[in-house]
Amino acid sequence: MYGYSPSNDDYLKRLRRIEGQVRGLQRMVEEDKYCIDILTQVSAVTNALQSVALGLMEDHLGHCVAAAIAEGGDTAAGKVREASDAIARLVRS
Amino acid sequence: MYGYSPSNDDYLKRLRRIEGQVRGLQRMVEEDKYCIDILTQVSAVTNALQSVALGLMEDHLGHCVAAAIAEGGDTAAGKVREASDAIARLVRS
Amino acid sequence: MYGYSPSNDDYLKRLRRIEGQVRGLQRMVEEDKYCIDILTQVSAVTNALQSVALGLMEDHLGHCVAAAIAEGGDTAAGKVREASDAIARLVRS
Amino acid sequence: MYGYSPSNDDYLKRLRRIEGQVRGLQRMVEEDKYCIDILTQVSAVTNALQSVALGLMEDHLGHCVAAAIAEGGDTAAGKVREASDAIARLVRS
Repeated sequence: MYGYSPSNDDYLKRLRRIEGQVRGLQRMVEEDKYCIDILTQVSAVTNALQSVALGLMEDHLGHCVAAAIAEGGDTAAGKVREASDAIARLVRS
Repeated sequence: MYGYSPSNDDYLKRLRRIEGQVRGLQRMVEEDKYCIDILTQVSAVTNALQSVALGLMEDHLGHCVAAAIAEGGDTAAGKVREASDAIARLVRS
Repeated sequence: MYGYSPSNDDYLKRLRRIEGQVRGLQRMVEEDKYCIDILTQVSAVTNALQSVALGLMEDHLGHCVAAAIAEGGDTAAGKVREASDAIARLVRS
Repeated sequence: MYGYSPSNDDYLKRLRRIEGQVRGLQRMVEEDKYCIDILTQVSAVTNALQSVALGLMEDHLGHCVAAAIAEGGDTAAGKVREASDAIARLVRS
């Protein structure tokens, strides 16, 4: 029952497309495609993954974190810190 | 009266250090220092700036966004969206 | 016959592992796993992809770009510009 | 006599503008400006720094690394590795 549930199908669809892109990358390597074309495709996959991550983070803030804040108490502060740590991992990855 | 106020002095100190690092970069360029050494220093400044941004974002979530959520209503959803857009800019910068 | 050919098998192995991680992400979404755990895993996949990209770029510089420079002429400048554009896409993705 | 020398003045001008932007950030913190506006400005400064870094890297590849490759030998391989490490720091910062 987490925040992203209503959009599960959308995330699944995007992750399946990303899986297809990663298989496409394997084919490009097997077929000795030009490095720069592979790199362009890697950047596209990275962007698609980050876009999924940003969507999940927005859902998480609007649902899990918001619910914890509405309840108040220590849980809220813990959720904000946990979300901030995840944002830091995204920014640095 | 925003979220980062209690830590204002800390952020100011860090931004002054970053300003000093940027002046250091100017000196390196003026003195024709080795490109890779300049690039290493640019990465250090970028990391320092991102670290300030991550601190500001955590304060923002824990204060402004939390206050909006506690109040409830449309403002809360607007604040979550606004924060998510800022996170996206950080991740993509 | 591009620069990454000798390491093809290594890249393929890493891309297959990344494909497995992306399928793992799909399972996490299907099983309604906690958003933060999914986000942690997305960051891991992004890092793995970037690591592949950095390896490909190093091979590319050491082989294709180096060969173009050794030949000299306009091709060399074109290859440097093309590699720089790919680096910019990586940095901004 | 490094690769970026001919564009020194351009880099200096951009770094001075970045220094001004960092001072602007300090003023925003002192004047308790809204966190999101500060974060937007931090992203702008980070992008400006990365753009300087990408310019320096292109100059470096086209001059220092190209010169080492033209000379051949172990120096060339060392320069490619050194540049690749700097690219990795940029991508991960």
